[in-house]
Amino acid sequence: MPDSSLLETFSNPSQQDYVIEHIADEFTSVCPVTGHPDFGAIVLRYSPDQTCVELKSLKLYYQSFRNEGIYYEAVTNLIRDDLTALMKPHWLQLITQWQGRGGIRSFVTATSGHVPEVWQRD
Amino acid sequence: MPDSSLLETFSNPSQQDYVIEHIADEFTSVCPVTGHPDFGAIVLRYSPDQTCVELKSLKLYYQSFRNEGIYYEAVTNLIRDDLTALMKPHWLQLITQWQGRGGIRSFVTATSGHVPEVWQRD
Amino acid sequence: MPDSSLLETFSNPSQQDYVIEHIADEFTSVCPVTGHPDFGAIVLRYSPDQTCVELKSLKLYYQSFRNEGIYYEAVTNLIRDDLTALMKPHWLQLITQWQGRGGIRSFVTATSGHVPEVWQRD
Amino acid sequence: MPDSSLLETFSNPSQQDYVIEHIADEFTSVCPVTGHPDFGAIVLRYSPDQTCVELKSLKLYYQSFRNEGIYYEAVTNLIRDDLTALMKPHWLQLITQWQGRGGIRSFVTATSGHVPEVWQRD
Amino acid sequence: MPDSSLLETFSNPSQQDYVIEHIADEFTSVCPVTGHPDFGAIVLRYSPDQTCVELKSLKLYYQSFRNEGIYYEAVTNLIRDDLTALMKPHWLQLITQWQGRGGIRSFVTATSGHVPEVWQRD
Amino acid sequence: MPDSSLLETFSNPSQQDYVIEHIADEFTSVCPVTGHPDFGAIVLRYSPDQTCVELKSLKLYYQSFRNEGIYYEAVTNLIRDDLTALMKPHWLQLITQWQGRGGIRSFVTATSGHVPEVWQRD
Amino acid sequence: MPDSSLLETFSNPSQQDYVIEHIADEFTSVCPVTGHPDFGAIVLRYSPDQTCVELKSLKLYYQSFRNEGIYYEAVTNLIRDDLTALMKPHWLQLITQWQGRGGIRSFVTATSGHVPEVWQRD
Amino acid sequence: MPDSSLLETFSNPSQQDYVIEHIADEFTSVCPVTGHPDFGAIVLRYSPDQTCVELKSLKLYYQSFRNEGIYYEAVTNLIRDDLTALMKPHWLQLITQWQGRGGIRSFVTATSGHVPEVWQRD
Amino acid sequence: MPDSSLLETFSNPSQQDYVIEHIADEFTSVCPVTGHPDFGAIVLRYSPDQTCVELKSLKLYYQSFRNEGIYYEAVTNLIRDDLTALMKPHWLQLITQWQGRGGIRSFVTATSGHVPEVWQRD
Amino acid sequence: MPDSSLLETFSNPSQQDYVIEHIADEFTSVCPVTGHPDFGAIVLRYSPDQTCVELKSLKLYYQSFRNEGIYYEAVTNLIRDDLTALMKPHWLQLITQWQGRGGIRSFVTATSGHVPEVWQRD
Repeated sequence: MPDSSLLETFSNPSQQDYVIEHIADEFTSVCPVTGHPDFGAIVLRYSPDQTCVELKSLKLYYQSFRNEGIYYEAVTNLIRDDLTALMKPHWLQLITQWQGRGGIRSFVTATSGHVPEVWQRD
Repeated sequence: MPDSSLLETFSNPSQQDYVIEHIADEFTSVCPVTGHPDFGAIVLRYSPDQTCVELKSLKLYYQSFRNEGIYYEAVTNLIRDDLTALMKPHWLQLITQWQGRGGIRSFVTATSGHVPEVWQRD
Repeated sequence: MPDSSLLETFSNPSQQDYVIEHIADEFTSVCPVTGHPDFGAIVLRYSPDQTCVELKSLKLYYQSFRNEGIYYEAVTNLIRDDLTALMKPHWLQLITQWQGRGGIRSFVTATSGHVPEVWQRD
Repeated sequence: MPDSSLLETFSNPSQQDYVIEHIADEFTSVCPVTGHPDFGAIVLRYSPDQTCVELKSLKLYYQSFRNEGIYYEAVTNLIRDDLTALMKPHWLQLITQWQGRGGIRSFVTATSGHVPEVWQRD
Repeated sequence: MPDSSLLETFSNPSQQDYVIEHIADEFTSVCPVTGHPDFGAIVLRYSPDQTCVELKSLKLYYQSFRNEGIYYEAVTNLIRDDLTALMKPHWLQLITQWQGRGGIRSFVTATSGHVPEVWQRD
Repeated sequence: MPDSSLLETFSNPSQQDYVIEHIADEFTSVCPVTGHPDFGAIVLRYSPDQTCVELKSLKLYYQSFRNEGIYYEAVTNLIRDDLTALMKPHWLQLITQWQGRGGIRSFVTATSGHVPEVWQRD
Repeated sequence: MPDSSLLETFSNPSQQDYVIEHIADEFTSVCPVTGHPDFGAIVLRYSPDQTCVELKSLKLYYQSFRNEGIYYEAVTNLIRDDLTALMKPHWLQLITQWQGRGGIRSFVTATSGHVPEVWQRD
Repeated sequence: MPDSSLLETFSNPSQQDYVIEHIADEFTSVCPVTGHPDFGAIVLRYSPDQTCVELKSLKLYYQSFRNEGIYYEAVTNLIRDDLTALMKPHWLQLITQWQGRGGIRSFVTATSGHVPEVWQRD
Repeated sequence: MPDSSLLETFSNPSQQDYVIEHIADEFTSVCPVTGHPDFGAIVLRYSPDQTCVELKSLKLYYQSFRNEGIYYEAVTNLIRDDLTALMKPHWLQLITQWQGRGGIRSFVTATSGHVPEVWQRD
Repeated sequence: MPDSSLLETFSNPSQQDYVIEHIADEFTSVCPVTGHPDFGAIVLRYSPDQTCVELKSLKLYYQSFRNEGIYYEAVTNLIRDDLTALMKPHWLQLITQWQGRGGIRSFVTATSGHVPEVWQRD
């Protein structure tokens, strides 16, 4: 089941504003209604304050959803909340991108904080 | 025929602002003039307030247009209106993307409400 | 329902070997088990003998499957048989390419006759 | 020759702001200097007021340029003016996208009115 | 664990040679060494004799590998053997396509029987 | 109207076997039934004997179809015949690739002579 | 050597704001250090005032750099200055896009004037 | 090891605002934890003041990271700092784009200064 | 330096003919003339006899070329020879795909043994 | 002008059959009729006997065509002949791929010798 205690951090090595993105292409959980697996990608973007999430611990945290029955919207809000509580970043954006079910593909985008200037033009 | 009574909702699981997208790649209706089928995709984006549209009911609602003779512009405005009435979301955007007829591809974009901050930079 | 009487032919304008392909990207029928619509593309390739299938009649014939409950394999073999009976071509290949259901995309390839030399290297 | 009398309209079925796009991939006219044909695509985007342009009439209007000798810039401004006069939309954008001549591809973008809010974020 | 008893068949509706492909884009199993999940796609192609594999049962069979620790080569040969034993087809090809591990992507291709003429030119 | 007298040749500069391809992406003619324009590409491949077709004359010859009402199959066989009569090449392949009409895209492939060894593996 | 006297203009046919783009995919000059050729594309965008640059003269002007030894930054600023002096446009943007040298691809973007409203949303 | 003394500059040839991008597709360093190599691309964008970085020296500077054990975030901030100290540009953006590790691709974006007007619409 | 003693094998789990491909996208060695790094991908395909190469050991073997000065042709033949000596497979194909140097991209293909039937149509 | 004396060779490091490809994406020569530059790519594939062509010398040889007025067919046959005379390879294939002129793209393929087994399936 989802286990935020797997998440670890390290100290932010810079005091300047910058943005980190981690794109996990191999996320899977289970549909709570049908019991069939859901597959998707998870895009995490954040502007760190004091700490950054350690990459391998992030992978293990994502793997803890593997056999969990949970809705798209709940996954998205839960991960956003867990990572925001962990790092207290200036800004965090969490996007889940789900492969098609019944001919419909879904995306859910959640954020905390405000978009930093460094991310406003690219 | 189009039947908005097929639509169902569930309670929004989060009180924070976020955006949900559902992309249906397999929409079909019928041209009211020629009687030939039209094929297209429907992009739904919204920022929920109290409720979210249930995914399987959305699929059945879209299927109810299968043998309906209806124009591109009317489909777009009708779906926008049905979903806005159903969920009363903070913001809703409905885009229909039609495959070519006579060498012309068409897109129609309708909205209700105002774009939320969470959607303003990506 | 599928109606091969919609098909019309015209006289083959050439006595030399050649190959005609028609790719219909907007085919739809209905799953006989679930009642949900199936969407796909149909690739027709043939080397004509005395007659060619008329393009608009082919479109109307394909449209006659719109509300028919029928399996992938049956659609493919039926269309191959109808068109072979209609034109008695030197060679005919019929490929159906179905969009995903439950995470699985399917293709079915059926032929009649032998591949002509004109089609053996491209 | 270009004939705006071919254009027809129908009443806008909605009083809400929305945007319609028609993309014609098969436009052709003639270079007034060399007499060789030009090929391109035409993107029309507009926010309707009282009327919308009827799709088949738009196709016939575009076809009326087939044997006309006319420059890229003149085609773009003429179509923008004809459609603006016809519909008096809140906003209209007309983009011509020309295939390469002498190793140079060209695009011309013309508008009338101001971009509506519905079109400002996508 | 992998469970071939989930597989079901139906009678081949045609006595002519043809080829069926099912492409499952959402396969996952577990690396027997590291315990980390593996993700991949499975391409099945076969020329049926008396029976065809039923699509939903194929999906459930693939899902039975979800928490199984098993090597790439073993998965491929096992599925080839299970499906060959089930259907005794004229020809069967099974390809597993694995996403990258340590910067290396892997594909394994196994067959039984001989390629039919219908599949020799496309 | 189609005018093969526009075609010119030059002497083949080499006595070795080789293959020349010319791909014209901007072909247009007119549907003899509806009067609407057809758009497509023409792929010419040949292994020259004594002469090669001059490129600018080929372009003018293709342009001579601009306002001709003619079927897909007839265009393909006519161009194949005109170019074969002009150059008497060892081998010639003529493919017309037509953009969609009524949701169906069409390709017609005609040849004369036999495929040379230089073209058999690439 | 670069020769701005090759450039010619014609009168702007419209008094409304619009934007013209010319994309030349086949630019080449010479590296002043190594003497090896550089290859790239040049994107020109401008909002005309009284005059527009004539397309064939633009091509000849670009060709005049063929055997000139000149740095990326200097090419970009020189062409921006020559075209701004020629047309005195409301706005002009000149982008050079260079193919890789030593594993590094380079782009240089220069402008004169301010971005017009017609260009601010697309 | 990373060696900023390899970096060289040349005088900015223009006093107008413009933007230079260098995209290095072949960057490699070493993971400080596992000792395995990391591969990625580095995008550098800047608006020069008095000096520009010389391209070959930039390549050699990037190569000096080849056998250095260093984290993604540290590489990004170090290069941003070295290049900012070297050139003191009006604005500088440094993006590192890392290929997948354990199914997760990462991007880090750092800047100094403020985005110039020339870069605000493209 | 290249070290084939890093390579390990495991017993082939099947006695049927099949083909294994491993595609390593992150290979790097050093040009023996200029000392600059070369980057490329390595495609390995083989039909195993008694043993298969273990994937992690293959990765470490490839990493042992990281600081070796060696030509494209020599890398290709050396890896083909090392892996053939290790596994004595029925067939082995080794392709190196090098990113551009001086505007020229290179590929080298070497094999041992004869192509198995399982690989002759796909 | 084209100068085959620029070409250099080195000894083939392997006595086994293999194939080398060099793809030069930045070839340019001049049209002998119009004087305008032609741009294209050159694909060289060969199976070496005693010698291989040295890569930098190949680049300089290609650059020697930069200001030469020469037809597509002549370039292709000349390079094929020069490289065959230089290396006397078991097999050599030379393909020139020209960007569009007047809406027509051209490719010319010439060979010497016979295709080796190593190249017959991929």
